[in-house]
Amino acid sequence: MNGAQAMIRTLVDCGVDVCFMNPGTSEMHFVHALDSVPEMRGVLALFEGVATGAADGYARMADRPAAVLLHLGPGLGNGLANLHNARRAKVPVVNVVGDHATYHAKYDAPLQSDILSIARGVSSWVRTVASSETIARDTADAVAASYGAPGQVATLIVPADTCWLDSPGPVGPSPVSGAGTVPSDRIDDIAAVLRGGEPAGLLVGGTAMRTGALHDAARVGMATGAKVLSETFPTRAERGAGTPAVERLAYLAEFAQMQLQGLRHLVLVDAAHPASFFAYPDKASDLVAEGCQVHVLSAPDEDAAGALAALAAALDAPSDPPVIPAGRPARPTGELNAESMANALGALLPEGAVVADEGNTTGLFAQGATAGCPPHDWLTLTGGAIGFGLPTATGAAVAVPGRKVICLEADGSAMYTAQSLWTQVREGLDVTTIILNNGSYAVLNMELSRVGAGDPGPRALSMLDIPGLDFVALAASMGVPATRATTAEEFTVQLEAAIAVDGPALVEAVVPRTI
Amino acid sequence: MNGAQAMIRTLVDCGVDVCFMNPGTSEMHFVHALDSVPEMRGVLALFEGVATGAADGYARMADRPAAVLLHLGPGLGNGLANLHNARRAKVPVVNVVGDHATYHAKYDAPLQSDILSIARGVSSWVRTVASSETIARDTADAVAASYGAPGQVATLIVPADTCWLDSPGPVGPSPVSGAGTVPSDRIDDIAAVLRGGEPAGLLVGGTAMRTGALHDAARVGMATGAKVLSETFPTRAERGAGTPAVERLAYLAEFAQMQLQGLRHLVLVDAAHPASFFAYPDKASDLVAEGCQVHVLSAPDEDAAGALAALAAALDAPSDPPVIPAGRPARPTGELNAESMANALGALLPEGAVVADEGNTTGLFAQGATAGCPPHDWLTLTGGAIGFGLPTATGAAVAVPGRKVICLEADGSAMYTAQSLWTQVREGLDVTTIILNNGSYAVLNMELSRVGAGDPGPRALSMLDIPGLDFVALAASMGVPATRATTAEEFTVQLEAAIAVDGPALVEAVVPRTI
Repeated sequence: MNGAQAMIRTLVDCGVDVCFMNPGTSEMHFVHALDSVPEMRGVLALFEGVATGAADGYARMADRPAAVLLHLGPGLGNGLANLHNARRAKVPVVNVVGDHATYHAKYDAPLQSDILSIARGVSSWVRTVASSETIARDTADAVAASYGAPGQVATLIVPADTCWLDSPGPVGPSPVSGAGTVPSDRIDDIAAVLRGGEPAGLLVGGTAMRTGALHDAARVGMATGAKVLSETFPTRAERGAGTPAVERLAYLAEFAQMQLQGLRHLVLVDAAHPASFFAYPDKASDLVAEGCQVHVLSAPDEDAAGALAALAAALDAPSDPPVIPAGRPARPTGELNAESMANALGALLPEGAVVADEGNTTGLFAQGATAGCPPHDWLTLTGGAIGFGLPTATGAAVAVPGRKVICLEADGSAMYTAQSLWTQVREGLDVTTIILNNGSYAVLNMELSRVGAGDPGPRALSMLDIPGLDFVALAASMGVPATRATTAEEFTVQLEAAIAVDGPALVEAVVPRTI
Repeated sequence: MNGAQAMIRTLVDCGVDVCFMNPGTSEMHFVHALDSVPEMRGVLALFEGVATGAADGYARMADRPAAVLLHLGPGLGNGLANLHNARRAKVPVVNVVGDHATYHAKYDAPLQSDILSIARGVSSWVRTVASSETIARDTADAVAASYGAPGQVATLIVPADTCWLDSPGPVGPSPVSGAGTVPSDRIDDIAAVLRGGEPAGLLVGGTAMRTGALHDAARVGMATGAKVLSETFPTRAERGAGTPAVERLAYLAEFAQMQLQGLRHLVLVDAAHPASFFAYPDKASDLVAEGCQVHVLSAPDEDAAGALAALAAALDAPSDPPVIPAGRPARPTGELNAESMANALGALLPEGAVVADEGNTTGLFAQGATAGCPPHDWLTLTGGAIGFGLPTATGAAVAVPGRKVICLEADGSAMYTAQSLWTQVREGLDVTTIILNNGSYAVLNMELSRVGAGDPGPRALSMLDIPGLDFVALAASMGVPATRATTAEEFTVQLEAAIAVDGPALVEAVVPRTI
């Protein structure tokens, strides 16, 4: 058994049985070994950002890591943006980067590069395999490291000769550290603060965005009057009819500050201290009001759901907080715009759907319009690196094959990782993609006016215009059936038809700019 | 004048007047400032790899740097692969990466990332702008650093507040170190070696691939009997009828070893020591034969053309080495394959054309078939990171607007940075793209058989198959007129028509796998 076979067998034995890959010559032994470990599913991507984003989406829905296989430093570079998003999502990813054979590095061949330096920018754990003797244990350690807690990108750099030389064979799982239990005195302290009666809020994020934890957060809110907010960009929010109502912290700093206004206490539950997404001249970066004390109930490496349950118990919270009633918007008519697009989605979203949301400005109304739809999951752009939606939808579809995945994708962002559509066709994935085409980097039009540089001139504005993209043709180039809608009625009918397809389909929604 | 205006004005004053960009919020002051410095041409890309590859192509043809504008760590990641190629091409690139405002970093906002670590992987020079007071000098220093010698990627990390705060204004150029003169005793030593009569070769690369230097290399070969070889992947080779014949070192190690066989002396002229592109089990990485002495005439930071001229003079070399006679292949007929495709290109290549060659296996015959065409330039994949051809062609077309750019692009590689086509349309660039569609990562089929893993199984082979891509539709999605050819006659007629278009056009050549 060579090192590559031992690595793949170890991955499978550690519960990692999907590998999103874009291999090159130095990974050919890994590719060759796929036939000797049939439990490993290799999913080919035409671009590394598709592979890494798919691993992110997979982990969000499977709650366990996929592997990624990349080719040297440049391949890692191409995958970096979506690894950044995965890092911010705190999901486990086993990121395997092939390298030249150990003895070849000294020749500084054309593809020689500083993989370690590049990997450190996105990985909490990085190790270079030293030999085919250790490759199996290194692999098991990478899987364990990826689990964290919290989940993280664990990068294993694999020189080609450690794959092709003989190995002693696979090993079993390495120990996973797991999430820590929040100490009871912290629970008691925060319970006392909330009982004190001063205006308070819970800011819930991360692993606390699942129904059970949200339910406990809502109970705490009910018992104490604390406002329950969610972070702006959750990794995976369970939502829909029957789930507790949670107010999302706004993206725009001014609005977020209004939501936090007047609070004397803010309790963070696996959520970051509220800060502005970007800095703006003469605007605050820290969004917490002066005089508001910030308490951490649960840090990312701790058990947030357990902490919320304990807090609710400590407060003798009622067991049945109000939940969102079932309800859908009517099928929209008239102009196709951000609002009618959202209403069509709300009218049609299937039960159990997974929404990968990179709708940006045109997606603004989508969460509101779907709040009362049957239970579903919502995945958001945790790290702000665009090109996330299509790959994440692809990986999510691999993780939960029985469920419909809907990708809400802005035109500008779609153009980063559109190669995802090809993988969807190849794997027969059940993804409905909605492209929101307003011919613009609309969010940047807003940002350009917000950064205080004064009125922009024509040359600046032209840098934010991206006209002339035909997404029906783009979909056709990769074999995805697609249609284009220019009215709300057309869009609703076309979306219904696309959802009815058991496999990839795409609807291009031609919309005006929201902003 | 704010920092951004001072930066752009300084770039222009230092001779950098093109910026390939894919900006985000933290770069909005830079974008805004474009209207106050009209000499700066902003060229928008839909993906960062297009911007960085375009800067590479621009520098190869303009012999001076363009600027690149990227958005934080993820944007840099997306641009990394083509920066790697530019680094290997030893061309100057001024790589501007926007960052959060200095005071915002501590909030660890979603897009916060370790830009420095990522940048170090591809940049010889990295600096973070400390304030708007220093931004102009930092910019001038980055331009100077990019020139080297040799040319390099100089990365300037620019916190947003250093752009929006007041600055003292632009500064003039910083001193450029320039290429060193090769000492005369080294010239004399190498002249003595070559006069010695033992079998010798010159391996010419880098800046020595221009006509004047190649002419002197050929003179040296004529005077001494030394074999004149060129490196496998030159940055920019001037070639065609009337240029001296130079034998290209083969990509495949076995062939390269045969070319170097029997040499007792190998003289490197701005070329790397011959090493295998990848390592293979039981094959040599070092391709130089045992007993062959390697001499460096000119290192990358030295004046290679001057050294060759001095060497030719020291050897009293004849002034008129043989040159390649004018001649084109006949228009091909019959099956469309790598060879007939190359012959069609040879039959039609316009004088002064620039060929960006990422033809990979199907491009194998292209150099041979065009050797006797009117003088032209040939740009190759210096760093081995695929996704190079379309962006490099785009940048080359910006650099030399009067000349036809031909992009030879393999299907797999095309899918990395196909967004280039949109920039070509937007800027009206005169690029003819030939997509070589064999539905396969054909080079990996070859590599898979070469790595000694034994016969591949069906699952391994399926990872190298990329069927179902329709490049005519892909071109249409971005507004490029395109046709598909399946016979040599069709291809020749379509290529002729595409070349006749004054602007972007694309021909998809459906070809069988070469290997």
